Amino acid sequence: MINETMKKLGEERSVIRELFEYGNRRKAEIGADNVFDFSLGNPSVPAPACVREEIARLLREVPAEVLHGYTSAAGDPAVREAVAAYISASFGATMSASCVYMTCGAAASLTVSLSALCVPGDEVVVISPYFPEYRIFVESAGGKVVEVPADENFHLDLPALGKAIGKRTKAVLVNSPNNPTGAVYGEGEMRVLGDLLRKKSAEKGAPVYLLADEPYRELCYGTSPVYPMNVYENTLVLYSFSKSLSLAGERIGYIAVSPRCADADGVFAAVCGAGRSLGYVCAPALFQRVVASCLGKSCDVEIYRKNRDLLSSALTSYGFSCIPPEGAFYLFIKSPEQDAVAFCERAKKHELLLVPSDSFGKTGYVRISYCVARSVIERSLPAFETLAKEYGL
Amino acid sequence: MINETMKKLGEERSVIRELFEYGNRRKAEIGADNVFDFSLGNPSVPAPACVREEIARLLREVPAEVLHGYTSAAGDPAVREAVAAYISASFGATMSASCVYMTCGAAASLTVSLSALCVPGDEVVVISPYFPEYRIFVESAGGKVVEVPADENFHLDLPALGKAIGKRTKAVLVNSPNNPTGAVYGEGEMRVLGDLLRKKSAEKGAPVYLLADEPYRELCYGTSPVYPMNVYENTLVLYSFSKSLSLAGERIGYIAVSPRCADADGVFAAVCGAGRSLGYVCAPALFQRVVASCLGKSCDVEIYRKNRDLLSSALTSYGFSCIPPEGAFYLFIKSPEQDAVAFCERAKKHELLLVPSDSFGKTGYVRISYCVARSVIERSLPAFETLAKEYGL
Repeated sequence: MINETMKKLGEERSVIRELFEYGNRRKAEIGADNVFDFSLGNPSVPAPACVREEIARLLREVPAEVLHGYTSAAGDPAVREAVAAYISASFGATMSASCVYMTCGAAASLTVSLSALCVPGDEVVVISPYFPEYRIFVESAGGKVVEVPADENFHLDLPALGKAIGKRTKAVLVNSPNNPTGAVYGEGEMRVLGDLLRKKSAEKGAPVYLLADEPYRELCYGTSPVYPMNVYENTLVLYSFSKSLSLAGERIGYIAVSPRCADADGVFAAVCGAGRSLGYVCAPALFQRVVASCLGKSCDVEIYRKNRDLLSSALTSYGFSCIPPEGAFYLFIKSPEQDAVAFCERAKKHELLLVPSDSFGKTGYVRISYCVARSVIERSLPAFETLAKEYGL
Repeated sequence: MINETMKKLGEERSVIRELFEYGNRRKAEIGADNVFDFSLGNPSVPAPACVREEIARLLREVPAEVLHGYTSAAGDPAVREAVAAYISASFGATMSASCVYMTCGAAASLTVSLSALCVPGDEVVVISPYFPEYRIFVESAGGKVVEVPADENFHLDLPALGKAIGKRTKAVLVNSPNNPTGAVYGEGEMRVLGDLLRKKSAEKGAPVYLLADEPYRELCYGTSPVYPMNVYENTLVLYSFSKSLSLAGERIGYIAVSPRCADADGVFAAVCGAGRSLGYVCAPALFQRVVASCLGKSCDVEIYRKNRDLLSSALTSYGFSCIPPEGAFYLFIKSPEQDAVAFCERAKKHELLLVPSDSFGKTGYVRISYCVARSVIERSLPAFETLAKEYGL
């Protein structure tokens, strides 16, 4: 009688959200300090000082009816100008305010872009393992997910991608730094990807778009990732300030359509139309202005780096196997038994909340979000060690 | 190649948004004081003091990583409790936190509810004239709009509604206080509507839902509107704090599913699923907490009442014809020529920005948003008077 697909989506929830809710209940039962919740990518490092300062300044200086009023649907013009200027100056990409659409965070950047581009029957290529909500977002836009496994180091498998992209491919969706693997695609592989997409677009006679989901751009422990627009013209950068400014709950991000995109004006119009159709009237007004003043700033990423080093070296020393992540704040370890779900259930007995890789489109691995207080990692280590011993590692 | 429906939606924009953007450009050209922009329902009365105080308190007392972090998808549990308690206490409706879903504002309340309920082929009955985005939201959820004209006083035409509701009707969408007419449906007509929906549900063998879009509830110049759940069980109240707290740009509201709804748990799950599918991860976290502390407060509604009185008496004295609005902040006047679009174009020459009723599903009227500074109304009156004279009123 109601929409059963939506009902099922609501009942199932994501595995990650389910664990997060379980963790909250468990913390209430046995005390927050006794649960080691590595489930959610909820930043533990506070927002940089500029966020609070800017909120205070705006409250002081801007009349409430202006500050909290509607902005234009695509965003406050000054905010869009600031974002465009930042992209141009930081990445050397040509960008104009007319190609910047402010969104309610990364998920909205994805649903709006996918609805703008896709028609029923279109295929969207994703690299597995991938963020599980990708499938929901692609399908709700009428598209079909085509999974292409990453290579053994969780980088792009370009020959496999070449085989998967065909006449029905509307877009390739990449996420670097990557959730859940922590991989950061190098400039070389991104340039080859750009060449591949250019060739495939020519074969198809229409653009194959690159959707670059980049909420972790600033959370990178090596060199900065190449800016996707600089390697390929038909690119939409989907950005969120959730992780860089630790504003995950405030729902603020943007879509930047490359001005070099074929029919860039048309694509941007479709983005505006999709936002309208999904009910996104404008991105939250106060935080639009806050992020415009904090562009290029970020939370203290060194804290995450130290978490990564502590956790990956300890787990490796206990016998777990992982590739050190190059970015984001996830450790992707091999499950010591083939069934990662069973492993995570066993870990739960030690109050370790880990996410099995199955819902990311890959079996046999586990995602550990290390965006937690260092003390959580420190206190959790004996539990990980015991767990390793149980598996005879 | 891209989604042409979305492109068209983005290019056309709403008539209202188009006028608003025109107004901004015109103000830049000839000065803000010389343009009388009555296009948008953007509150002019500042948010009540509790908003600013609560933001300051939260910034002072709650650690940033908690304050700005993800909440549960349906909202922060304490916020949902507060909303449920407020609804129970204020309206005497049974409500529980488990039936409250916090949203990114009224439009999201609508798109999420419609996606939760509708399957392709479903009909959604709207009362014309109606907020133009209703059509876009219903259609993007796969539904079909069935328009039922209001009666001559812009109240419910119950016999016509009775004829329009059939086997394919999934929901009836009402908006009281009404945009664009200012009508507030009385308790009597709402009770008859409840009886009608009950009868129609029995005939259909499945609920016909009542979607009560209530962003203007507090903007009422007579008695308070009846609470829709109290007249009919299969009700979803779609609320937004945009107007009551003058927070239109902050995108914060909620969906309250009546616990007396058939399969209330299923409906609520579908709401959660729809929110997930459309990319609404959670409602903006800071403002969730702000509104929870400001429930029952509102901006100074007397200012709007005085605007209404000034504008409606002046326009009536010039010869324009309107029914005095009972709520919201719109005056719906009869166009002095049959073609309201032509009338609005003529009004534009006097820098009066008015919205023709055509996109609201009714010809021959004009919507004037009087949520503007009183001085705008005062300065605009000579232009209205000249316009009336041009039409020989």
